[in-house]
Amino acid sequence: MSYQREWEELSAIKGELAERDWFMGTSGNLAIKAGSAPGAFLVTASGKDKRKRTAEDFLLVDLDGNPLEETKLKPSAETLLHTHIFKRSQAVCSLHVHTVANNVVSELYGDQGQITFKNQELIKAFGKWGQDDELIIPIIPNYADIPTLASTFSHHVDEDAGAVLIRNHGITVWGRSGFEAKKLLEASEFLFQYQLSLLSLKSTVQLQS
Amino acid sequence: MSYQREWEELSAIKGELAERDWFMGTSGNLAIKAGSAPGAFLVTASGKDKRKRTAEDFLLVDLDGNPLEETKLKPSAETLLHTHIFKRSQAVCSLHVHTVANNVVSELYGDQGQITFKNQELIKAFGKWGQDDELIIPIIPNYADIPTLASTFSHHVDEDAGAVLIRNHGITVWGRSGFEAKKLLEASEFLFQYQLSLLSLKSTVQLQS
Amino acid sequence: MSYQREWEELSAIKGELAERDWFMGTSGNLAIKAGSAPGAFLVTASGKDKRKRTAEDFLLVDLDGNPLEETKLKPSAETLLHTHIFKRSQAVCSLHVHTVANNVVSELYGDQGQITFKNQELIKAFGKWGQDDELIIPIIPNYADIPTLASTFSHHVDEDAGAVLIRNHGITVWGRSGFEAKKLLEASEFLFQYQLSLLSLKSTVQLQS
Amino acid sequence: MSYQREWEELSAIKGELAERDWFMGTSGNLAIKAGSAPGAFLVTASGKDKRKRTAEDFLLVDLDGNPLEETKLKPSAETLLHTHIFKRSQAVCSLHVHTVANNVVSELYGDQGQITFKNQELIKAFGKWGQDDELIIPIIPNYADIPTLASTFSHHVDEDAGAVLIRNHGITVWGRSGFEAKKLLEASEFLFQYQLSLLSLKSTVQLQS
Repeated sequence: MSYQREWEELSAIKGELAERDWFMGTSGNLAIKAGSAPGAFLVTASGKDKRKRTAEDFLLVDLDGNPLEETKLKPSAETLLHTHIFKRSQAVCSLHVHTVANNVVSELYGDQGQITFKNQELIKAFGKWGQDDELIIPIIPNYADIPTLASTFSHHVDEDAGAVLIRNHGITVWGRSGFEAKKLLEASEFLFQYQLSLLSLKSTVQLQS
Repeated sequence: MSYQREWEELSAIKGELAERDWFMGTSGNLAIKAGSAPGAFLVTASGKDKRKRTAEDFLLVDLDGNPLEETKLKPSAETLLHTHIFKRSQAVCSLHVHTVANNVVSELYGDQGQITFKNQELIKAFGKWGQDDELIIPIIPNYADIPTLASTFSHHVDEDAGAVLIRNHGITVWGRSGFEAKKLLEASEFLFQYQLSLLSLKSTVQLQS
Repeated sequence: MSYQREWEELSAIKGELAERDWFMGTSGNLAIKAGSAPGAFLVTASGKDKRKRTAEDFLLVDLDGNPLEETKLKPSAETLLHTHIFKRSQAVCSLHVHTVANNVVSELYGDQGQITFKNQELIKAFGKWGQDDELIIPIIPNYADIPTLASTFSHHVDEDAGAVLIRNHGITVWGRSGFEAKKLLEASEFLFQYQLSLLSLKSTVQLQS
Repeated sequence: MSYQREWEELSAIKGELAERDWFMGTSGNLAIKAGSAPGAFLVTASGKDKRKRTAEDFLLVDLDGNPLEETKLKPSAETLLHTHIFKRSQAVCSLHVHTVANNVVSELYGDQGQITFKNQELIKAFGKWGQDDELIIPIIPNYADIPTLASTFSHHVDEDAGAVLIRNHGITVWGRSGFEAKKLLEASEFLFQYQLSLLSLKSTVQLQS
């Protein structure tokens, strides 16, 4: 079975995100469906340095996260989240990264269970084109037990593209292509950084005006 | 008709801005006049990954934004803003990007309709060399309707080089060359980051002195 | 005696950290054990530009920090700290860098003598996998006298992997491999930046809710 | 007269600083003495894109800033500051750059005329090795008249290595080599960023403890 094209695509995305330092401390993991096999996807191997590009970066697994080829590699511990995305939607690519901004947002808004963006051009990346459209990104607790985490996560996978924050555990986005998943990831990060900067300044400006 | 030189110039600018992550979530668009044809310019094609360099990055359009060559590419949705710049001034290049700082400034000062810089060395980039010169950058509302947005925008295009903020929708700068447009873009970004940093610290310092 | 492999490994780590500007003003130093000689390690030579890669970047020293080969190079002034790590643990690599975040954290929490992280996914890099696990990073005073500094430091080297902040003098991490040391360094930096961002925003958010 | 070596050295420094975006909006300028001619130095030509490397990046001038070779290039408008450094000290290299942090510090501490650093490891870059040593960086007003600015500046050039902030007009550092000048520039920037981060957080932390 051939998945050279998907490997190249995921590898390019990995390289780009690594350059931004979105995999600090070996955190983060990525997955892409292997097109010719409906029930198979490539996922990052556990414990690798994601700034390097090697033949052991990814391995092929089935929709339950079990390796489909003989390998000494172990799939990322959070592969279960990717399986839920591919089982519950037509998504093709799923990306999970930690950034300082997405972790801080997840903590500040964690008790509210979500963060809402409105009147922001960048929400168009999520298909929100109307004047009054809102983008809501859910925030779920960071259960140490991965099956519990994955199950809670799966309730928010109701479209083929989306994003979920895990409290103090980064963001997971998915889309109908690697390109779309990356677009949502970038737009989310931009909105989070914007929100934190605005929050820190709003009170100051009110004091001065 | 040949526009190889302009293509190369715009492509180099795109690459430089992409490296700074000023096109997050596929936002932003660029335009440069095709010198040998007074009524033609190159503009970014819609929906491309601006970190990549391909033969489909730009397409040639006339001053109304209609493609001048047979192509399956679509000009960027905001091409209309570039057409106003080229119609109303002698500008040669026009750049639109989102940064966290320019979006936050546009929101904080949006109600005032402008932001003013004074006693800052960097305003010299805009030709403000006098001891008491001021740089005023207008901020317009982000109308979802592009023709309304473009029309409001056009009222601020009264010189061959300038800059306008759109609220929560980034900045558009233009200049008599790609070099000048880029210079204004960089100077604006520097001033915005300076302003946000100063705002966040001024009250603190006053409390301590 | 051959240490080509260790040289390459340390050189690659140096290059990666230099790219992030973690050696500002020629600060920082690195060390790795030379595998075939139990009592020898490579350490950065004093006063070099760490953004460059040269044959004089490192020199081989014994466990007391004395050069093992004829050389005009001087080991980094803080080599003594690395010797304590290699004497008191099975660590293989030790990294010392200054970042703005690690210096600010060391000052803000210096009087408390430590900083504690909990409920943060990234503490897993330190082997803290339990729901209620805590990561404690000690902060020691920055004694100008290096032997005093090294002696104080050595009391915190009780495992084969760990991290210690020196007040206004960066962080030192060590691990059972270059890969592990780098992982701890990145995870620490992430946690510090997170902490500073959260601190600056928490009061603001409470005011608004 | 040959100055190939000095050209290469200054060009490498320029490239490194440009990569950090320390020449936003074509700001900044650099100078290095041409070793074989005691009264000559290379200085950046006016109005160039410092991210590019060309044969027109620098020109040779005498100690009054007049071109020593036939050229259509104009020396940077602030060449006068460099001439004072080379006339009043044994410095070999002089660097002037704008960063957000150095501009904000120059504004916050401008009325006090200086900023002082103590108990910071990084001040060792300036030769401050003692437990109680202080680093004082003067801040002068940004006179629009360059001769007035240069004259005020020159009063602070009393050593062969040093640094001066110009209010809202960046920093100028100089040293006995390009390497030393760059080291001081990096150490200053680190200290400024540290100071701004600490200032923004100190009150917050006090409130919580």
